[in-house]
Amino acid sequence: MANHDALPLVILTEQFAKLPGIGMRSAARLAYHVMSMRTEDVEEFAQALLNAKKTVHYCQCCENLTDKPLCPICDDPGREKSVICVVESPKDIAAFERSGEYHGVYHVLHGLISPLQNVMPDDLKIRSLLARVQNGGVSEVIMATNPTVEGDATAAYISQLLKPLGVTVTRLAFGLPVGGMLEYADEVTLHMAMENRNEM
Amino acid sequence: MANHDALPLVILTEQFAKLPGIGMRSAARLAYHVMSMRTEDVEEFAQALLNAKKTVHYCQCCENLTDKPLCPICDDPGREKSVICVVESPKDIAAFERSGEYHGVYHVLHGLISPLQNVMPDDLKIRSLLARVQNGGVSEVIMATNPTVEGDATAAYISQLLKPLGVTVTRLAFGLPVGGMLEYADEVTLHMAMENRNEM
Repeated sequence: MANHDALPLVILTEQFAKLPGIGMRSAARLAYHVMSMRTEDVEEFAQALLNAKKTVHYCQCCENLTDKPLCPICDDPGREKSVICVVESPKDIAAFERSGEYHGVYHVLHGLISPLQNVMPDDLKIRSLLARVQNGGVSEVIMATNPTVEGDATAAYISQLLKPLGVTVTRLAFGLPVGGMLEYADEVTLHMAMENRNEM
Repeated sequence: MANHDALPLVILTEQFAKLPGIGMRSAARLAYHVMSMRTEDVEEFAQALLNAKKTVHYCQCCENLTDKPLCPICDDPGREKSVICVVESPKDIAAFERSGEYHGVYHVLHGLISPLQNVMPDDLKIRSLLARVQNGGVSEVIMATNPTVEGDATAAYISQLLKPLGVTVTRLAFGLPVGGMLEYADEVTLHMAMENRNEM
């Protein structure tokens, strides 16, 4: 937005532009759109922002986002409490739940260890994961962080802490995506697919 | 978002998804992002929304968005008040102002005539445009609506109303975009470029 725009519009544009994946041009378009919304709808939007931030917190058990003491997955008696799938963020849970194949529970780290970005193990929800395993009843912990440098390092670090507690620690399998084409696969994926090959 | 998500998060996601160009997947990502923002920053965002909607209204003269009685362009004594450029929406003004070549003033219609979408001439800011011209001092009105069916029809309709008032009505030139390549131009643009050709 240029200097001929009204100041409250410029401020709103800057707020939109702070959101991930929204540049200045899109932010200006969104701010103009808000001007064309009905006042009640803008109030509803603002209320939804404040309300979500105020009422949503971390699940007492798995650190997923919820507005109850326990999230619906931890609260579900049908889920297998002996298997914990450790993920980086709540949106990874959504991905597993869409597949509908996993019936265990989760643990959300809320980040990955990254010394370069000044994220240390103490900044993640690792202590509550150790406490869950120490409380007993857990047979397997699946490290489901992304196959990046930080994801692998975090999985390795946590695995070192868990093994002395007598629990099986596994890592997701990495290889060719199903339906993917060999010629489009990157070298690291191909290497992993070759290394982890199975007998037919 | 699936049914394992906290209700206030689902509501916030739906609010984001109502914005233009934001699908359900992006909306969920934005809602998760809001959860990771500081409470003060979320409050600032909500306040910016409410404040922009409350304080920004239409300029008394040109119907542009402003938080003062007159927008900065109408209020600028350096702008030529005898030339009015008629645009569909406030964001079109930003496009002209970026070019820095236009020194007249504007008039924002806030839409285009579109019987299919039930937008009639009375829904647009046409009466205030006629009033400006009737008050005198205007020598030229430039119809700068987009070269679409609705844009052309709206320009033609308003031009019929303006001509009896003794003002020159012009339309933006349409042709090949500068720096564009002939082979990538669509047929309508090529046709317009041919039709409006100039002697060298």
